[in-house]
Amino acid sequence: MNQPNRRDVIPLANSPSICAWASVAGKKEGDGPMGFCFDQIEPDSHFGKDTWEQAESELQRRTVSLLLEHGHLKQEQLDALLAGDLINQCTSSSFGIRHLNVPFLGIYGACSTMAEGLLLASMLVDGGHMEYCAAVTSSHFSDAERQFRFPLSYGGQRTPNAQWTATASGAVLISHQQKPPYIRHVCVGKINDLGISDANNMGAAMAPAAADTIQRFLMETNTRPDDYDVILTGDLGVVGSKLLLELTEQNGYHLHHVHRDCGVMMFDNTTQDTHAGGSGCGCSASILCGYFLPRLASGELQNLLFIATGALLSPMLCQQGETIPGIAHLVHLSAKPNEKE
Amino acid sequence: MNQPNRRDVIPLANSPSICAWASVAGKKEGDGPMGFCFDQIEPDSHFGKDTWEQAESELQRRTVSLLLEHGHLKQEQLDALLAGDLINQCTSSSFGIRHLNVPFLGIYGACSTMAEGLLLASMLVDGGHMEYCAAVTSSHFSDAERQFRFPLSYGGQRTPNAQWTATASGAVLISHQQKPPYIRHVCVGKINDLGISDANNMGAAMAPAAADTIQRFLMETNTRPDDYDVILTGDLGVVGSKLLLELTEQNGYHLHHVHRDCGVMMFDNTTQDTHAGGSGCGCSASILCGYFLPRLASGELQNLLFIATGALLSPMLCQQGETIPGIAHLVHLSAKPNEKE
Repeated sequence: MNQPNRRDVIPLANSPSICAWASVAGKKEGDGPMGFCFDQIEPDSHFGKDTWEQAESELQRRTVSLLLEHGHLKQEQLDALLAGDLINQCTSSSFGIRHLNVPFLGIYGACSTMAEGLLLASMLVDGGHMEYCAAVTSSHFSDAERQFRFPLSYGGQRTPNAQWTATASGAVLISHQQKPPYIRHVCVGKINDLGISDANNMGAAMAPAAADTIQRFLMETNTRPDDYDVILTGDLGVVGSKLLLELTEQNGYHLHHVHRDCGVMMFDNTTQDTHAGGSGCGCSASILCGYFLPRLASGELQNLLFIATGALLSPMLCQQGETIPGIAHLVHLSAKPNEKE
Repeated sequence: MNQPNRRDVIPLANSPSICAWASVAGKKEGDGPMGFCFDQIEPDSHFGKDTWEQAESELQRRTVSLLLEHGHLKQEQLDALLAGDLINQCTSSSFGIRHLNVPFLGIYGACSTMAEGLLLASMLVDGGHMEYCAAVTSSHFSDAERQFRFPLSYGGQRTPNAQWTATASGAVLISHQQKPPYIRHVCVGKINDLGISDANNMGAAMAPAAADTIQRFLMETNTRPDDYDVILTGDLGVVGSKLLLELTEQNGYHLHHVHRDCGVMMFDNTTQDTHAGGSGCGCSASILCGYFLPRLASGELQNLLFIATGALLSPMLCQQGETIPGIAHLVHLSAKPNEKE
């Protein structure tokens, strides 16, 4: 594990709220075990557009529109939108929201993007620089397959430990509305690279980063896994989740009872042939927004750690024989705000 | 021009300082008119590595090492490093700094990345969430050409309005050291897309975004161009700079006397055959860090607006016939801090 930095955990003194959220998913995701929780399910995988890239932009555009609707907010009231995705040059984001009249900040964290956007937006609101700040991300199975592996028409075989990029998007709106869910702490991830070079085994590349971030957080806050209702990782899948539990176990943290993983939750492998589970920025984003945020808002859940994980690889670097750097950002969400000092 | 948002200009109440900076450039950039101002010039375009992608990672790694040296800071003291670049999945950043033990936040703003990193880092320090926050970006001619246009060995002809991606990198360290340059205001850019679809004419695609951001800033702060020693745009080049002056002129702002452009400054087209000028994230980053920050620190310059511009295109989307969205983020740098209320 990395040596602790001066500030591994950043407390948010004013505990900003996630005052609105939205999720949109594709047909396969809608047919899966989480299908009931998304705001919209789109049966057309092209989202009415001509190309897969345009489809993902449309997916992200719709999610942001829905978010503004849920937050009763006009475009002109939004101080900034943080957005990112997996597609080269993050064009699902820039093309998806180019027609909106809002300040735009592009971020890139691969599948950790939702947590990165959430933690940056919450600090910008907590520090008083912004009143309303939003974060959005998305992924689409078909453009991601073409870009990272093979075009669908090639009919490539998938390895047993491969994950299935979810066609989904999630968005959050942060402000000081003093209602749950509150954002109490954030922890910025460090890059961990333990030498995995198999681009079909992302879970293994990301698990060490997740373990590092979770352990840094628990150590510095002097809390235990059981202090949280859920420790929710994004997209480690079956292989990576097993590794995470082993790695944290070695350091005396038993996560078994409270750990959930969005990649494991998204599909039913017995009927959906998704191998090690779901992945993609939109996987953890849509499940956080569709399933967990409503339960934190209602008080059914009291404390949740959201740790979205990203594999910071590129096809080019993998072809050059490089190993895969992983990262994991953490956000502590709660039904109650931090106590004022 | 876009309708003003609730807060177009964000004042930084505590005026954080850029307490250290660093710049590294390639041989062609070192041979150009700005060659005298960079901290390091590397004659080997491979930076001692095997591939162009590894070369850019090494370039960025060196710049960050130099930054920490200049700031007398250990890795363990850095609260976060914001980094991004032009290469697919931002791997120049993630691979360049993966061996550092620092919290990492990936950003993507194409050639606007330096301003985006600077404005985010300065808000995180201003709001008290971080004590030391750094931002870095880079570009390399050879990997950018291969990715966005043609591999060098193809020997493609360049159009007259094409820009030359600079091999360069710049990095800044933000903290509350109460010494100039101070960061007084930031303005987050909005996406502007006026329908340019020629990927060889980035200046034209980015000029409307620069005009929009500069005008929003001047209007909301009720200041005039002459209130600033320099209004410094990043990488509009000769074509885009001319357009910017025309667009702002139409709205009654005369920028001629104070406008400089990093893309125009970087090369000497009469001897270096660079057509419309320099471009790439590293162009404005290295010139800001190498030339302008020392002059703000010494008091030779009192007030500077830094507006880095980005073309949020991808080769894939251009092939699909899409137009190019542009963005421009602004940072107001000064030899004096904001007055406390």
